[in-house]
Amino acid sequence: MSYISLPENLPGMHGLMAFRPAIAPGLTALTNALLCTDEGLSRGERELIGAYVSGLNQCTICKNVHSAVAQCHLNANQETVEKTLSDIPHSDLSAKMKALLSIAQSVHRGGTYVRLEQVKLARHLGATDFEIHDTVLIAALFSFFNRYIDGLGVTTDDTPETFMERARRIAEQGYGA
Amino acid sequence: MSYISLPENLPGMHGLMAFRPAIAPGLTALTNALLCTDEGLSRGERELIGAYVSGLNQCTICKNVHSAVAQCHLNANQETVEKTLSDIPHSDLSAKMKALLSIAQSVHRGGTYVRLEQVKLARHLGATDFEIHDTVLIAALFSFFNRYIDGLGVTTDDTPETFMERARRIAEQGYGA
Repeated sequence: MSYISLPENLPGMHGLMAFRPAIAPGLTALTNALLCTDEGLSRGERELIGAYVSGLNQCTICKNVHSAVAQCHLNANQETVEKTLSDIPHSDLSAKMKALLSIAQSVHRGGTYVRLEQVKLARHLGATDFEIHDTVLIAALFSFFNRYIDGLGVTTDDTPETFMERARRIAEQGYGA
Repeated sequence: MSYISLPENLPGMHGLMAFRPAIAPGLTALTNALLCTDEGLSRGERELIGAYVSGLNQCTICKNVHSAVAQCHLNANQETVEKTLSDIPHSDLSAKMKALLSIAQSVHRGGTYVRLEQVKLARHLGATDFEIHDTVLIAALFSFFNRYIDGLGVTTDDTPETFMERARRIAEQGYGA
């Protein structure tokens, strides 16, 4: 049961968007512009950052949805994505991606925790300003989503199967379709 | 100096929007839909929540801008707004507004920190589901803005005078004008 009365049978963000339709267009446009592009970071890498931050924030709904979308984009199975997210340093991710996820981890704690040295390391390992920017923005956006969902006690009836079905639709058609 | 090369002479969010124009329309629409309305919570109350969360996140730029916008909407001076934000329990705010700011404080820590009891208290003191929803969403949105700004080490050349000038324009015309 969420903390406020939301329309029934609409999982996660869908119930919130139905409750407060005026904010849906902006939020959907922002999410699509940031997550549904392969410029610099791929769609799969973007979703991985989102799932990682959601896990750090213990937002189960967001972590499950965006891990599943990452799986679709990366052609990976659930076990691989979970293993990656649970131990970034020993994962098969590139050194650049590990450095970017370290920045995302700091953003999750708070903007002032990001150190210039982390940014310099990411740049040294090949990250562009565009990729560094998008990493910070994605980590900040999920810090938002996680707080929005859990701050209102939103729950979901989703099962692993329906999560995967929604994830496939998002991966193919983007958000808000 | 910000951590990435941003267009010069554009303060705060303006430099970021110029660097990454694709995300500007969605972010501006979301911000206007949430902050530039008096439905339930007034514009001044909305800006006060944003300034409060920004202060908790030690995001000086956001705190200064949104305190100034709150001043404009509330017809208050800087000292009154600063005094209110520095000691909510002893401020002149209504009991309902204090309860909502307590929810905002929890959202700033993380979505899972919000307790059903806080929501019940706010409702008991007259808050509607719409107002509770918007409080959580505003606190989440500023958790985003603060991380975006400080996570990229964004600075500003603004003075108290130019802050106030920008705030007046925002109060009159909204965001992204």
